[in-house]
Amino acid sequence: MTQTETAAAGRPMRADARRNYDRLVSAAREAFRENEGNTSLEQIAKRAGVGIGTLYRHFPTRLALMEAVYRDEVDDLGASATRLTQEAEPWDALVSWLRLFLSYATTKRSLFHELIAEIGKDAELLTHSRGVIQGSSRAMLSRAQEAGVARPEVEASDLLRLIGGCTMMPGGTDEQDERMLQLVLAGVHV
Amino acid sequence: MTQTETAAAGRPMRADARRNYDRLVSAAREAFRENEGNTSLEQIAKRAGVGIGTLYRHFPTRLALMEAVYRDEVDDLGASATRLTQEAEPWDALVSWLRLFLSYATTKRSLFHELIAEIGKDAELLTHSRGVIQGSSRAMLSRAQEAGVARPEVEASDLLRLIGGCTMMPGGTDEQDERMLQLVLAGVHV
Repeated sequence: MTQTETAAAGRPMRADARRNYDRLVSAAREAFRENEGNTSLEQIAKRAGVGIGTLYRHFPTRLALMEAVYRDEVDDLGASATRLTQEAEPWDALVSWLRLFLSYATTKRSLFHELIAEIGKDAELLTHSRGVIQGSSRAMLSRAQEAGVARPEVEASDLLRLIGGCTMMPGGTDEQDERMLQLVLAGVHV
Repeated sequence: MTQTETAAAGRPMRADARRNYDRLVSAAREAFRENEGNTSLEQIAKRAGVGIGTLYRHFPTRLALMEAVYRDEVDDLGASATRLTQEAEPWDALVSWLRLFLSYATTKRSLFHELIAEIGKDAELLTHSRGVIQGSSRAMLSRAQEAGVARPEVEASDLLRLIGGCTMMPGGTDEQDERMLQLVLAGVHV
């Protein structure tokens, strides 16, 4: 069992090991985004302020590190849904969450394409990811529907497919993504 | 130059050869749709009421036949745009055309995936296809915008990406496709 799995399963990790783990994931996440995945593990270790040996103890392979970053992105989406439910009005919360989901979906295409091809569609990580995203999107949409601000016939998977799908088409821009998001939102709003 | 290219370039073909060509394309189109591409060339020749030798004279390879069917689908989309512009009100015409485009995009994913991988993205056929689809979608949308029934900030490529993109996600149903189309239409309508 790798350290990634240990962390993911919530097994105890010493506080300094946990801190290094979190620093590495955070540094890798930033570096992958900035350089579209073209970052050496040495650069990531340096950015996290740890030695390359520490990186390899936590993440024996590049794939293990990518898995941890991907899991971190997904868990952030789930945590954002919880936070938005507490802090924002139903419609604003749905809009904010879908914008985060759009950013996640764009990153997923550009960064995690290889990871997903490698680990296969039935991997625990992807089951976990689907669960978090389905649960979060349903919670955000049904809250807006109960408040009477989202059309009752819309299903959460419609939104995920429309927003996630358009990121699968080549040649998009941030500006167009935003325009498409606005179009979908106008279609959902009562 | 194959017969397919001859036909595509509009070079003269004898009337009976043209009739056989059209019958073969039409039979192949139906058979591919019904059987998700799993149709033998013998079955297609039989369905078209011609001998297998005639099929091979027109289409030396299965790929050549698929190219002709794909071109036929695209040209139908273009012809539908022209017809709808003459016969239907701007909004109804846009709705009908987008429904045809959704059906085309779904077929493209299931049937023409291999064809497109094989001929490459820069093939004349795909350039032609993009031209027809961009031209048609822009014509339908701008007519609706000029009539004041479609939001002015929407671009035709937004609609193509949203509707085409969602067909790229696995596990869709006709019912969900229709619901997503309605959602997009609600978002475009003024």
